[in-house]
Amino acid sequence: MLLEPEWALQDPQDYIRTFQHTIPDVLSMSGVDPQDVIGIGTDFTACTMLPVKKDGTPLCNVPEYRRNPHAWVKLWKHHAAQPEADKINTTARQLNQAWLHRYGGKISSEWFFAKTLQILDEAPEIYQAADGLIEAADWVIWQLTGVEKRNSCTAGYKAMWSKREGYPSNDFFKQLDPRLENVVDQKMSRSIDPIGNKAGELTAQAAQWTGLTPGTAVAIGNVDAHVSVPAATVTEPGRMVMIMGTSICHMLLGREERTVEGMCGVVEDGIIPGLFGYEAGQSGVGDIFAWFVNNCTADHYLREARQRGIHLHQLLEEKAAVQKPGQHGLLALDWLNGNRSVLVDVDLSGLLIGATLGTKPEDIYRALIEATAYGTRVIIEAFEKNGVPVDELVACGGLPEKNKMLMQIYADVTGRSIKISASRQTPALGSAMFGAVAAGSRAGGYDTIFEAARHMARLKDEVYRPIAANQKIYDRLFAEYVRLHDYFGRGENNVMKTLKQVRDQVN
Amino acid sequence: MLLEPEWALQDPQDYIRTFQHTIPDVLSMSGVDPQDVIGIGTDFTACTMLPVKKDGTPLCNVPEYRRNPHAWVKLWKHHAAQPEADKINTTARQLNQAWLHRYGGKISSEWFFAKTLQILDEAPEIYQAADGLIEAADWVIWQLTGVEKRNSCTAGYKAMWSKREGYPSNDFFKQLDPRLENVVDQKMSRSIDPIGNKAGELTAQAAQWTGLTPGTAVAIGNVDAHVSVPAATVTEPGRMVMIMGTSICHMLLGREERTVEGMCGVVEDGIIPGLFGYEAGQSGVGDIFAWFVNNCTADHYLREARQRGIHLHQLLEEKAAVQKPGQHGLLALDWLNGNRSVLVDVDLSGLLIGATLGTKPEDIYRALIEATAYGTRVIIEAFEKNGVPVDELVACGGLPEKNKMLMQIYADVTGRSIKISASRQTPALGSAMFGAVAAGSRAGGYDTIFEAARHMARLKDEVYRPIAANQKIYDRLFAEYVRLHDYFGRGENNVMKTLKQVRDQVN
Repeated sequence: MLLEPEWALQDPQDYIRTFQHTIPDVLSMSGVDPQDVIGIGTDFTACTMLPVKKDGTPLCNVPEYRRNPHAWVKLWKHHAAQPEADKINTTARQLNQAWLHRYGGKISSEWFFAKTLQILDEAPEIYQAADGLIEAADWVIWQLTGVEKRNSCTAGYKAMWSKREGYPSNDFFKQLDPRLENVVDQKMSRSIDPIGNKAGELTAQAAQWTGLTPGTAVAIGNVDAHVSVPAATVTEPGRMVMIMGTSICHMLLGREERTVEGMCGVVEDGIIPGLFGYEAGQSGVGDIFAWFVNNCTADHYLREARQRGIHLHQLLEEKAAVQKPGQHGLLALDWLNGNRSVLVDVDLSGLLIGATLGTKPEDIYRALIEATAYGTRVIIEAFEKNGVPVDELVACGGLPEKNKMLMQIYADVTGRSIKISASRQTPALGSAMFGAVAAGSRAGGYDTIFEAARHMARLKDEVYRPIAANQKIYDRLFAEYVRLHDYFGRGENNVMKTLKQVRDQVN
Repeated sequence: MLLEPEWALQDPQDYIRTFQHTIPDVLSMSGVDPQDVIGIGTDFTACTMLPVKKDGTPLCNVPEYRRNPHAWVKLWKHHAAQPEADKINTTARQLNQAWLHRYGGKISSEWFFAKTLQILDEAPEIYQAADGLIEAADWVIWQLTGVEKRNSCTAGYKAMWSKREGYPSNDFFKQLDPRLENVVDQKMSRSIDPIGNKAGELTAQAAQWTGLTPGTAVAIGNVDAHVSVPAATVTEPGRMVMIMGTSICHMLLGREERTVEGMCGVVEDGIIPGLFGYEAGQSGVGDIFAWFVNNCTADHYLREARQRGIHLHQLLEEKAAVQKPGQHGLLALDWLNGNRSVLVDVDLSGLLIGATLGTKPEDIYRALIEATAYGTRVIIEAFEKNGVPVDELVACGGLPEKNKMLMQIYADVTGRSIKISASRQTPALGSAMFGAVAAGSRAGGYDTIFEAARHMARLKDEVYRPIAANQKIYDRLFAEYVRLHDYFGRGENNVMKTLKQVRDQVN
C-alpha cells in the first residue's frame, strides 16, 4: 500500500524481533553470561505511538485492521498530522491553556495528541477499536514485563503531561473534539512513573525471546536523547548536553520550572528524577552539511577526495579549517529544515549572504557550520536570559567524532568549553545505566541514576576551549546573525513564508 | 615583473599587430577585395588608456620607461585606482559638481581620471613625461589615420565630458590635486568628435600593415557596447539594447537629458548623434551562472551531462526549464560581483533565500537567472520613473544564443517583448556600419548611421513575449526582490559591507 506524503509507519513486530534476535546475538558475540545481566534499560524514539487492544496487541496485528495504515505504529517523523497540531495550538491559545508555555507556545505535529487526533479524524473506526493509545517506548516495556507502565519523559515531552498538573483537562479535549473528551481515561493512563523507576521484571516469555534470566529488573521506558544526558555525565544543572547528528537536541537540567522561549518542553522528572529537564533543538544540522555536500560541491572536489581516499566532508573540513573566522565573508541562517528552537517555525528556510564570484565550496561549508553554531548560541542565550544557566557544554552523537573544526567553532561561537562523551554509544550506555538503577545496589547495580553516572559515565580527555581571538570575531558576526534571525524569523519580513506559499500554489 | 593585485595592463604593440596580421588574414580568408572595403570602423574596450609622447609613441615603447608599469596601457578592468576614484567622488560631492548626476552620483575606479590620478600619485615621473593621456580607442584611430581625434563616447562615458559643459572645470581638477589643474589642456584635448564622424583616411603605412587601400575612410573611435546599439537596429528612443554576456550593458536612447538613479552615464551624441545615450549595467550575469556551475553543482550532474554529451549549463537549463515560476521556492540577489545599476556599490554581495533540504542545483541555477532578470527590471523601472520610456528589449551577446529559458524569464519578469539581434558579432557589425557612414553614400556607404542601420542591421524572427500567467507570479516575487534589494542595498542593513570589512580585517 502506498502511503500519503509525510507519513512514516513502523511494524511493532520488528521490536519483538529485536528482542528475539539482536539481544541473543549481542550476548553470544560479547560472551557475556546472561546471569551477569542484572537489569535492562531501553530507549526509544518519541513520539512513536500505536493503538492497542486491552492486552497490548497492536491493532495492526488484528486481521480486520491490518490494511488500515492508522492501525500501525506512527513513527516520530510521521508529519501528516500538521492540521491536527494546528487545531490543538489554536484551541489551546483560545482557551488560554497554561501548559502551552512549557512547550515554547506551540506543540509539534510529531506529538501524541496530534497523531491521536489524526486517527480520530481519518479513521474513527480505529480510534473506536483501540482500547489504548501508547508510546512504543512504553509498549516494549509492557512486552518485556507484562505490565503497562507509562514513563514521565514521553508523557511530559510529547503528551503535555506534568507532574503537578497532569494532562490538559477533559474540557480542553472536549473543546478540541467532543469525541476526545475522555481520551486520557479511556485510552491512556493517569499513572505516570518517573524516569529512574523500575517498571517490573522480565517475564518467562521475554526471557525466552532474549536469552536473559526471568525476573531480571526492567527500567521504565525512556527516550534516546534524554537517556543520553546522564551517560554524558550530566545529572546536575548548568551543563548542557548536545546530541549532535543530523539535528541537535539540547538537554539541560534546572531546579525550577522557567518559561524559556521556544523550548521543545520542560518536564519535571523528564530526564533526571527530582529536576526539571529542558529540551531544545535545532531541526537541521548534519542534514544541512550533507545536503550541501550531496548537491552543491563541484566534481573536482569529489575527484580530489577520491584520489586522497578521504570523504568529501573531510576534504571540505580540511580546506575550511585553515581559514580564520570571518575570512570567507559569508553568513548563513541554518533554517533549511525549519527552526525548532527558539522560533518553533517549520516554514522558515535557509539564507546565505555574502557570496562573491570568488566564493568556494569550503567557504559555504564553513559558513553553514557556523550558522548552526550561532543557532545553538541563540538557544543558550534564551536559557540564560530566563535564569537557566549554561556554563559548559557536553557533546555526544556522530558529529563530535567526525569534525574537530566544527567542535572548535562551537566553542568559539558559544564562548564555552565543550567536553565530549567518552562513549560512542551514549544512548545505549544511558539505557544500561537506568537498567543498573532498576536492579539496585543489592543486585550489584546502583540505587540512583546519580550513583550510576558517577561510576558508569565518562568524558574524553579532549576539551574544546574557546579561543579569545576567534570569539571576538564571532561575537561580531553573531550580532549580524541575530539581526537576520529576528528580521526574517520574527515577522518583520516574511519572505520565507511567502516563497513557500507561492511554491505550494504553483505546484 | 609581478603586478600588484587588481592591476590589468596591455601592450599597445598588440593593437598594431592586430592591424598587421588579423586584418590581412580576414581579407585573405574571406576573399574580399581590399578595393571593396570603403570604410573602416572600430570598437574598443573603455576606459582603456595610455600615456603617449607628442607623436603618439606610447611611453612603454620609450626604453627608459619600459620597466615602469604606469607607462603601459591600463585596461578597463584595471581596478587598482579605487582610492583615486574615492577621492574624485568625495571632492566632486564637496564641490557640488553637477556633472556627478550624469553618472548616477558616483564615478568608477575604471574611468579615465581615476587612472590618471593613480599615475600622478604613484609615478609622477610618468605623468610628467607624458605629452598626452589618451583612450586606446582614439590611439588606434591615430595610428590608422595619422591624426589625433577624440570621440564623444569615451570622453562622455569615461572622462566626465559633456557636449554642453565640456570637462569638469580646471578649478575642480586643482582642488582634486594642484598638479592636475591643467590636465585637460596639457594632456588631452577639448576638441571632441561626435560618434558617427569621419576621423580621417588610412595612411600609407597603415595601408601597408592592413593590406587595405590608402585613403580609405576611417570612423572616429567607438566602444564595444555602444557600437552594438545601431547594429541591434536601435537608433531611436524606447527600445533598450541589452548586451548579455558575463555582465549586461543596458543601452537606451532619449531625446532629453534626465537624471536616472545609478546610471553609468548619460552622454549626448554618446551612442547615436543627436540623441542622449544612456548606459546602465549589471556587473555580474553570465559570470554568476558560471561561478555556480563551476563551484556548486554536484558531480552526478556533471556525469549526466557528459553521458548525454551536453554542457552542464545545458543540463541545468533543461532541468530548470520544466519548472513553473515560483516552484523552487527560492529568491536571490544578483550581487555576487557587486551592483552597478542602480545602487552603484561594489561592496554588495550575493544573497540566496529559501533553500530547504530538498533544494536542487537546478533550483538555485534558475533562481540566479531570475535574480539577474529582476536586476534588469529594477533598471528599466528606474528609467521609466524618470521619464525615459522602455517599451521593448533587444538582446545581443552570448547569452541569448545559448539559453532560451533565460530569455523567456527576462520577458516574463520585465513584462516586455525581447527581440534578438541577427548578428552573432553585433559589435563588429556596428563598427562596419560606422565605417560605411565614414565612407558616405558617394563611396557606396551611407550618409548617416540611421541609413546604415536600416540597411545593415537585422533582427532574428524569434521574439520572446511575456506569458501573462508567469508575469503574475513574477510580479509577486519581484516585489519581494525589491524589498530585499532596498533593505540590503540602501543602508538599512549593511551586513554585506560588514562581512567584507571583517574579511579584509582578518586577512
